Amino acid sequence: MNGNNTLKEIAEVLKSAKTVLLFPHVNADGDALGSCAALTRALLGLGVQCRILIEDKIADNLAFLDDGFTTFDGNIFGAAPDICVAVDNGEPDRFPKRKEVFYTGRTLVCIDHHPTSKPFADFNYIDPAAAATGEIVYDLICAMGAKVDKKIAEALFAAITTDCGNFQYSNTTRRTFEIACELMDTGFNLVEVSNAIYQNNPPQRIKLEAEIMGTMELCGDGKVAIAYVTQEMLRETGARLEDTDGIINVLRGIAGVEVAALFKENDEHKIKLSMRAKSYANVSEVAQEFGGGGHVRAAGCTLEMTMTEAIATMKPHIVNAVNK
Amino acid sequence: MNGNNTLKEIAEVLKSAKTVLLFPHVNADGDALGSCAALTRALLGLGVQCRILIEDKIADNLAFLDDGFTTFDGNIFGAAPDICVAVDNGEPDRFPKRKEVFYTGRTLVCIDHHPTSKPFADFNYIDPAAAATGEIVYDLICAMGAKVDKKIAEALFAAITTDCGNFQYSNTTRRTFEIACELMDTGFNLVEVSNAIYQNNPPQRIKLEAEIMGTMELCGDGKVAIAYVTQEMLRETGARLEDTDGIINVLRGIAGVEVAALFKENDEHKIKLSMRAKSYANVSEVAQEFGGGGHVRAAGCTLEMTMTEAIATMKPHIVNAVNK
Repeated sequence: MNGNNTLKEIAEVLKSAKTVLLFPHVNADGDALGSCAALTRALLGLGVQCRILIEDKIADNLAFLDDGFTTFDGNIFGAAPDICVAVDNGEPDRFPKRKEVFYTGRTLVCIDHHPTSKPFADFNYIDPAAAATGEIVYDLICAMGAKVDKKIAEALFAAITTDCGNFQYSNTTRRTFEIACELMDTGFNLVEVSNAIYQNNPPQRIKLEAEIMGTMELCGDGKVAIAYVTQEMLRETGARLEDTDGIINVLRGIAGVEVAALFKENDEHKIKLSMRAKSYANVSEVAQEFGGGGHVRAAGCTLEMTMTEAIATMKPHIVNAVNK
Repeated sequence: MNGNNTLKEIAEVLKSAKTVLLFPHVNADGDALGSCAALTRALLGLGVQCRILIEDKIADNLAFLDDGFTTFDGNIFGAAPDICVAVDNGEPDRFPKRKEVFYTGRTLVCIDHHPTSKPFADFNYIDPAAAATGEIVYDLICAMGAKVDKKIAEALFAAITTDCGNFQYSNTTRRTFEIACELMDTGFNLVEVSNAIYQNNPPQRIKLEAEIMGTMELCGDGKVAIAYVTQEMLRETGARLEDTDGIINVLRGIAGVEVAALFKENDEHKIKLSMRAKSYANVSEVAQEFGGGGHVRAAGCTLEMTMTEAIATMKPHIVNAVNK
């Protein structure tokens, strides 16, 4: 954790502010949004004005985290924010349309757990050992002396459980379960949170999943499962690109598969590739080679080519990663 | 917990035995088998001969729990066992082909967490507040003074995580997370266990899932999702009936659905119905009315009729349960 400040320092900086603007990454996931929502509630409780600046619509199944906290207005406070905080992302390129607003902050803070992140703000806390940024935010809220109430617990549980694959991924530690214990003490409704996140799939998502499974191809001696989704498949099923979230885990869940790769057509010449490894392959390396990033076992990159080209280009690199 | 003995009493009884035979329920799930495997290891460590008597093949994804512990031979010890223990099932009807052997035990014990169970053995510990029988077995092993090592932790984690839906179901408590913390202290490999259980789907299971989703019907104003699987569908996809495990959760995961019902054709006039509720419906009541049982939000029954009759018979009862 080179170049890190202490959470105590960051807590003091945040508490001394009048206005704080939080920056989750684009296509905010449970960890990004849950961490932001928890931090917002804690700061509001301490009398600090706080909002979450977003640049794209929040996923339906995470909407319960937004209690009027999110805004598309970078000038929400009518003046430059005292503090801008990058949450769950280690570089301003992860919030491209809000980058300029971010740098208007008088003090810049970064709170993240991605191993590829490097300190770039005035105050940084990057801990790749944390299963989720939500774990760090839990400690930060405690360091601020704020009370972790039911609603904060809801948001932090959402953050943590989504990022550690419901306590099944390799990033899950004793600390992850310890924090879960402490969140349970607030009496928050775990099953409500869980249902909101996971039991909320539109029927068209189920249809899309069946379609995607139809494109599945096993290669690399059955160690790699490749599938894709095109804009046409989305039109046919009435689903949206966000509806593909989680489908990659079904691919990875096939016996013998080490890496699952899902190619998603953003537009005709822009393919987003997501990769998930099961136990040993380093997909972060593959992603980084093509200008992407992420975690060792969960990474992605964007390819400016057609779907056919993208699959042909990446297949040997992915197969190579499982044979290392 | 009326009629319960203390775990200390049961621990002493087990430790004083020379031979112990464990009885998981038919079609043993992660909790039944994980609990048995953990208890077997602990007893073997204390010098007690212990085996798990089964009557059907263990599911492939749970085979890692069986370290030579299971047997189909009711006479494995060459004499009546000192103790027979029903594990994760509250009545000998849940292990019909082994019932006779069970009653040869000089002392009978029952360790279970199903709310419909009633004390029937010489020593009983039934705790419906436990998320899994694995939680009780953890406490029992501690009460026996045995060390919870990595292999016992693996088995107990498998038991607990499968029965509490990876810490997402309403049965998950602070205690569930506390035990997870204590299991983590053994240094067991959580991701290996999790991969063995969940990342081990045969490709034909994926095909079957797509087929089953094709039969999906929403009724009761979209609050009930019904689907079915026939022997013909199994033949076509090359999948087995066990491959349907977990598919019901996909049905329940549809937005607006409160109860998912999956009808499985065992043979032409024997339909097994599994029901899962999302947040409020009591499916245990429905199951009990038709001679089945289970938990409030996860129950099932067997119907001696054709698939068409079974669906027609049960649909109004299920719709009724969501409208209560």
